[in-house]
Amino acid sequence: MFYHVKDLQFNARVSKPDPAFATLLLEQFGGANGELAAALRYFAQAFGARNPYPDKYDMLMDIATEEFSHLEIVGATIQMLLTGINGDLKNAAENSEIMQLLDGKASKENMIHKGMIAPQFLVGSAGSPCYTNSQGVPWTAAYINSDGQGDLTSDLRSDIAAETRAKMVYEYLLQFTDDPYVKETLNFLMTREVAHFQMFEAALESINPSFPPGILQSDPRYSNLYFNFSNGNDYRGPWNEGTSTQFGEDIQFITDPIRYSLETNGLLNQQADGTDRTNESVREMDKELSELRSKEIKTASKMENMHWNSSTDT
Amino acid sequence: MFYHVKDLQFNARVSKPDPAFATLLLEQFGGANGELAAALRYFAQAFGARNPYPDKYDMLMDIATEEFSHLEIVGATIQMLLTGINGDLKNAAENSEIMQLLDGKASKENMIHKGMIAPQFLVGSAGSPCYTNSQGVPWTAAYINSDGQGDLTSDLRSDIAAETRAKMVYEYLLQFTDDPYVKETLNFLMTREVAHFQMFEAALESINPSFPPGILQSDPRYSNLYFNFSNGNDYRGPWNEGTSTQFGEDIQFITDPIRYSLETNGLLNQQADGTDRTNESVREMDKELSELRSKEIKTASKMENMHWNSSTDT
Amino acid sequence: MFYHVKDLQFNARVSKPDPAFATLLLEQFGGANGELAAALRYFAQAFGARNPYPDKYDMLMDIATEEFSHLEIVGATIQMLLTGINGDLKNAAENSEIMQLLDGKASKENMIHKGMIAPQFLVGSAGSPCYTNSQGVPWTAAYINSDGQGDLTSDLRSDIAAETRAKMVYEYLLQFTDDPYVKETLNFLMTREVAHFQMFEAALESINPSFPPGILQSDPRYSNLYFNFSNGNDYRGPWNEGTSTQFGEDIQFITDPIRYSLETNGLLNQQADGTDRTNESVREMDKELSELRSKEIKTASKMENMHWNSSTDT
Amino acid sequence: MFYHVKDLQFNARVSKPDPAFATLLLEQFGGANGELAAALRYFAQAFGARNPYPDKYDMLMDIATEEFSHLEIVGATIQMLLTGINGDLKNAAENSEIMQLLDGKASKENMIHKGMIAPQFLVGSAGSPCYTNSQGVPWTAAYINSDGQGDLTSDLRSDIAAETRAKMVYEYLLQFTDDPYVKETLNFLMTREVAHFQMFEAALESINPSFPPGILQSDPRYSNLYFNFSNGNDYRGPWNEGTSTQFGEDIQFITDPIRYSLETNGLLNQQADGTDRTNESVREMDKELSELRSKEIKTASKMENMHWNSSTDT
Amino acid sequence: MFYHVKDLQFNARVSKPDPAFATLLLEQFGGANGELAAALRYFAQAFGARNPYPDKYDMLMDIATEEFSHLEIVGATIQMLLTGINGDLKNAAENSEIMQLLDGKASKENMIHKGMIAPQFLVGSAGSPCYTNSQGVPWTAAYINSDGQGDLTSDLRSDIAAETRAKMVYEYLLQFTDDPYVKETLNFLMTREVAHFQMFEAALESINPSFPPGILQSDPRYSNLYFNFSNGNDYRGPWNEGTSTQFGEDIQFITDPIRYSLETNGLLNQQADGTDRTNESVREMDKELSELRSKEIKTASKMENMHWNSSTDT
Amino acid sequence: MFYHVKDLQFNARVSKPDPAFATLLLEQFGGANGELAAALRYFAQAFGARNPYPDKYDMLMDIATEEFSHLEIVGATIQMLLTGINGDLKNAAENSEIMQLLDGKASKENMIHKGMIAPQFLVGSAGSPCYTNSQGVPWTAAYINSDGQGDLTSDLRSDIAAETRAKMVYEYLLQFTDDPYVKETLNFLMTREVAHFQMFEAALESINPSFPPGILQSDPRYSNLYFNFSNGNDYRGPWNEGTSTQFGEDIQFITDPIRYSLETNGLLNQQADGTDRTNESVREMDKELSELRSKEIKTASKMENMHWNSSTDT
Repeated sequence: MFYHVKDLQFNARVSKPDPAFATLLLEQFGGANGELAAALRYFAQAFGARNPYPDKYDMLMDIATEEFSHLEIVGATIQMLLTGINGDLKNAAENSEIMQLLDGKASKENMIHKGMIAPQFLVGSAGSPCYTNSQGVPWTAAYINSDGQGDLTSDLRSDIAAETRAKMVYEYLLQFTDDPYVKETLNFLMTREVAHFQMFEAALESINPSFPPGILQSDPRYSNLYFNFSNGNDYRGPWNEGTSTQFGEDIQFITDPIRYSLETNGLLNQQADGTDRTNESVREMDKELSELRSKEIKTASKMENMHWNSSTDT
Repeated sequence: MFYHVKDLQFNARVSKPDPAFATLLLEQFGGANGELAAALRYFAQAFGARNPYPDKYDMLMDIATEEFSHLEIVGATIQMLLTGINGDLKNAAENSEIMQLLDGKASKENMIHKGMIAPQFLVGSAGSPCYTNSQGVPWTAAYINSDGQGDLTSDLRSDIAAETRAKMVYEYLLQFTDDPYVKETLNFLMTREVAHFQMFEAALESINPSFPPGILQSDPRYSNLYFNFSNGNDYRGPWNEGTSTQFGEDIQFITDPIRYSLETNGLLNQQADGTDRTNESVREMDKELSELRSKEIKTASKMENMHWNSSTDT
Repeated sequence: MFYHVKDLQFNARVSKPDPAFATLLLEQFGGANGELAAALRYFAQAFGARNPYPDKYDMLMDIATEEFSHLEIVGATIQMLLTGINGDLKNAAENSEIMQLLDGKASKENMIHKGMIAPQFLVGSAGSPCYTNSQGVPWTAAYINSDGQGDLTSDLRSDIAAETRAKMVYEYLLQFTDDPYVKETLNFLMTREVAHFQMFEAALESINPSFPPGILQSDPRYSNLYFNFSNGNDYRGPWNEGTSTQFGEDIQFITDPIRYSLETNGLLNQQADGTDRTNESVREMDKELSELRSKEIKTASKMENMHWNSSTDT
Repeated sequence: MFYHVKDLQFNARVSKPDPAFATLLLEQFGGANGELAAALRYFAQAFGARNPYPDKYDMLMDIATEEFSHLEIVGATIQMLLTGINGDLKNAAENSEIMQLLDGKASKENMIHKGMIAPQFLVGSAGSPCYTNSQGVPWTAAYINSDGQGDLTSDLRSDIAAETRAKMVYEYLLQFTDDPYVKETLNFLMTREVAHFQMFEAALESINPSFPPGILQSDPRYSNLYFNFSNGNDYRGPWNEGTSTQFGEDIQFITDPIRYSLETNGLLNQQADGTDRTNESVREMDKELSELRSKEIKTASKMENMHWNSSTDT
Repeated sequence: MFYHVKDLQFNARVSKPDPAFATLLLEQFGGANGELAAALRYFAQAFGARNPYPDKYDMLMDIATEEFSHLEIVGATIQMLLTGINGDLKNAAENSEIMQLLDGKASKENMIHKGMIAPQFLVGSAGSPCYTNSQGVPWTAAYINSDGQGDLTSDLRSDIAAETRAKMVYEYLLQFTDDPYVKETLNFLMTREVAHFQMFEAALESINPSFPPGILQSDPRYSNLYFNFSNGNDYRGPWNEGTSTQFGEDIQFITDPIRYSLETNGLLNQQADGTDRTNESVREMDKELSELRSKEIKTASKMENMHWNSSTDT
Repeated sequence: MFYHVKDLQFNARVSKPDPAFATLLLEQFGGANGELAAALRYFAQAFGARNPYPDKYDMLMDIATEEFSHLEIVGATIQMLLTGINGDLKNAAENSEIMQLLDGKASKENMIHKGMIAPQFLVGSAGSPCYTNSQGVPWTAAYINSDGQGDLTSDLRSDIAAETRAKMVYEYLLQFTDDPYVKETLNFLMTREVAHFQMFEAALESINPSFPPGILQSDPRYSNLYFNFSNGNDYRGPWNEGTSTQFGEDIQFITDPIRYSLETNGLLNQQADGTDRTNESVREMDKELSELRSKEIKTASKMENMHWNSSTDT
């Protein structure tokens, strides 16, 4: 259950209205890499973790809740950046002021950068944040639904990447305002993404094994092949020569993938090479991990008369 | 800032897994009238209300927070209804059990109703809730962005309608489960929509005037016309005869709207009839309300060095 | 069946082209609260009402048809506001004129406000309206599908809220044009939303009982609780003290909802307080209304050899 | 302006309820190739045609209006196919009947095909049509916005293709019902798509020239090249040998497009071959057509004090 | 299987950065009528054609592959038009340069046209193309999924229309740049749409019969009716008088469709007129074509032990 | 430029039709974590990398091209799994066979699992793949647009997470078929995700520094704080005690975040603790990296007369 305190986690401040920057800042309110996406991503992932992995559940809910608090910080900042619009719109019988703004003739010209203020602030939300990105595209759960797959070895990797992206958006946003108050808030929020990144990384490292993600191992015949599908100006690097990062297999560089596929009957005749892993060792590992993980999960949940609250446990 | 307590507001329970009903219940998790929609709707509306109308802000945040807690209740229920799926999927090396489920031959046949379990529970979230409706459509802010218009006389009406719709979905859902534990939870959640309805109604009634919504009055020439645009089997009722509900104007029934429009030069020649309101009285009211509302809002916010937290106020 | 007359219901006029305002006006053509949304909302609701409630069906189709006519008025106005663009684009071999417009050097500078004309008017529809909002987001039925729930006590409330929102958008739009012709049209359209609001309200009042919406009553243990979930700067008002608006129950203010939930075993131990309603009276009412409404509907439709046209009735 | 008559254009009938087929039939109500898409496509295209091409405007509005009438026929059929659901849902206090349906134990088993009825009919619209396709995806204007490009030589071709697709959907639907009444209606609707196809074709043929669509001619160096980009099991046919259908140019078959691009400096060195068209003749034609079409459009519209209704013309 | 060569099919060049035009050009990268839509449309259609119609499969894959190459050309052009943005953003510690750009004070003012650069280039992709249209709407398969219907007589017509629309977008885009290099590339791409149009047309003509699309003929009672549904300023033309384009039936003009429908019992009493086609001839043709087409398809595919590669055929 | 060879990279085979599994397999054709998403993600990221980091560009295009080839493998498998549907649909005059399938009475009952075949295969694509996920949701670039941010230290992390998710989907899919041929193909495709994961990891490791992603360092006052926002059943682990994974800072556990925020004036009074990093060291690093990265990028691109093809370089 959630609880709310009216003060923000971070005391967000704004020097003066700036609707153009408010428009850009929507990217962190209702954008693909924004705070709503973050909060809802971790919140959804937490449900499946609760019984079998209560420590990870705790972490996911700690961070999800913080992200809701960050969503509020971003929304409050946008609201302050839009100060003045709603009051002007309520003065509906006398529209000269806003017309002046839009004509760019008045002294408030600098307040609304011409052409960069989202129309939704004018005829939609009338000076308040709404759940769109900086271009007006409504937030969609398509951004995040695929990040919850019921397996922490995958979910945490999606989370590390998500924190990475959120950090980048703050880095870019910081370059489009020179309000020191706003910069101070963005700097805090950007830093928290860096902090969360490391938390998720630590949690991932505490799971063993965690590669490959999930249960099933990979086929040793295909796991170390590099297909040189893009021709011309070819480069070699640790991704297509030497040994692979996790399995330490010898990478097989296939110079002409089309010829190779045709000659191996569409790779059906491919044999494992440059690896100690075998079909048998893979099956063994598959079974072992299947037992381990399914047992962890099944023993943590009963199949009837379930309840959620711990206070009912006894 | 938000805070989270691991126990649910309502102690949700489930008798036994039922993935088919979990699929339907997604309607309240990631559907158009679901709890996510509700929580985010009120949360967004609250920002603009904070300075000028702190009492309504308090109510909106009280209810928004409760809705987040309800979202968690729905998610927890779905998770319990899906118990068993994730553990089975982790047993990836041995897939006979799930194949049996799908072939309908095993004793678990009744657990997964054939054809009604969402594919996303099998190959997407693997037995956890995700933000879609009961048909797999990802949640979109298009459901709610238009409900926040920066004016409480409109926002609260949208909220009353939204609570209405959410109540209906629970009423329908109650007819598709016979698990007494689940019914108990749905009954609680349905009742809260009824409670919220009355709160929003009380808040709306405390604003004067609140009709028409917003500032601008309506044109007395057109406000009491009823156009009989659908022909055949015509009916008369209080919506097209007698006096209008709010203005008490005499309703003018236009039997043949096409002829009427053509004869009045596309209504340009229309004169007000059956009303005491005049063009002048309307302009008067427009100005009066413009001053009142814009002043309420403008005086509540300063235009520079803004901050959000009350602890900084002194 | 529909019929079309080439003249508009209202004789829309435009003083001179204004592509920037045409962009904003898209909000009423293909926006969430626009005329397309309105027309299709009522049209869909009408199907279910036809047999059991032919008077409400008549009203819904009267208004749906008027909204289609309003959609045409908005489209015609946008088309007139964009006059000149298509002709210029057809002069494809000689692009100097448009380049001048965009460079802001020509005398037509005021015609296209820099940066506010939707790109879709230039490289998409080439100077005609299309079904997007003012930011280019394509119209989606996600805006309205949830407003049709097969129950007039809910549908009409959604309609009242929808008319409210549409009115607001016209109020805001009126502040961004000073073309007296366009204002005249917007004023007419805004007024009609106010008129429709009252019609839907009258129709809702003619249904008894209509609260709570639908059939099922609410649980007296939970219907009058107010949870003070947002902490700090708390306010009391008619929404959280006194009696509730519809049931007249004594509102129970729960100061510390977290403690309260934990102490009541997640509200499972909650007893009804401050209300005369009981579990028994609720069940009674549930049954009574179930019989009433299902009978109204079932007796109005036969289950075989159905047809729609009244001319076939005999 | 629109007008509505309560009888349908075609007297749609239904033998008995069939919710599973109602689900499939949604494809023609709210699907990509359905009647809503058709009606709104032609309606939007009509605006731009009104002044310069009033004959085509008349045709577009005739057909758009008919498509709205078809949308109503499809909706009425879905409503009749769903008869019984709403009445059952209103019997909310007693849910045994529906539970029996879903359990497949009752005699109504054949009414709801297991697993094929859309959840939206149960917990969303409660037995009425809504604007989704047969899988529950909400209708989006993304289906049609790109079909209106402000040029009849392109719009009419999009319309011909759209009628083609709508015809196919009816053809497929006809194979999933054996209700003779429903087949009769689908047969009518399918036939009308064939009729409209020929109308659009006739209208396109009445425009000269109409190829290439729009104004600008194509570059003779690139218009008759065929790049054999997919290798293996190559075929020759009238699309890559002989003369091209419209220009009658000799098709140049490029066997090895990669080598060819590299050797011609990315086609910059390409010379026209197998064609009489030259750079000069193309420029000539560009200018001629630019003048013709832009003049047609510009002379048909005045740039100030515009109005739409013909009754105001004098 | 695909293969990639790092040089472009056409040697795209750019004179100098122009982010505003890059924004418009997104219409061809991630817009409804853009190259991604084209490539994926033909690619999907090809699967079903492979066995029964290998010549059409070859053509579809030749063109699909060319469209992927065109997508790359458009992306490369956008990338070049955005040169400078990413490098500036990387200079994150020193944001003066970009601020100057946005304030319009610096000498680079002409590089970013005020208000017309997509925010996604600044805070999203940071100076690279992404899959949106010119207004930031993410590309959706809703644009094209309906164009693949498993029947070449419909798919090819959709393709002809799609090439038409893509041509138009290039024609419009050409009017918003005066960079001769960019014009040169757009001219090439526009011409290829014209070339593809003719290829699809030739392929369609090689199928007999191809009208009506699909298998089922149309009902002679309804195929030649023209309903004059839009009243006032009526026009006659080859689409509503004379003979129909494909069937050569005498068009029946129905002046007053509402009266006509009412008088014919909703067209149920309609008799075929002005046509030689009869119910019997239609059924005959239906059967004949059913046999022909289903046999073509069924004999081309075996129902077990299927494989795709031709190298396995022996 | 792309090239296509008609044989698949992997010789996909199918034992017998299975439309139900084809429906699930759509998740890898048009789903959020499917092959289309993968191919287009890397393809878009490659544009920005081309000039400054040609080795990474080479890798991105190699893998993007392989993913297009995988998309084709998945599409071919779906097509084979749907064998029979299109031929049946073409037999349109005689619909008994399909009706039998749907009624479940015929011997082909096992071919179409009741209720699990996507309607789009029946009335949409008619037995061919289309770009939706397993629930019919059209593919949207919203899945991937946010993964391209113009910085390899972020893009590669998104790619690692994306390969993780794609691997999981194959793992789940493998549990819903027992066709050994299909399993063989899925096993290959799953393995390639594991291989790509390691390639992206190797590429990321070759960039120094790569943490934090992008340019700007993080604020030492906030980078090592852990807020215990979710209360009850708290856990400690390496993510909230000890040292952080990348910076090695001492993690500061904040037991009561609300009190802490209130007492530190919304963290404005927070001092760095448990870290050697200072405001100065951070600024220093910001500047250094800004210079490094912006120089890398700026020197790699000229600002005028740009071209893409290497053949033009000399």
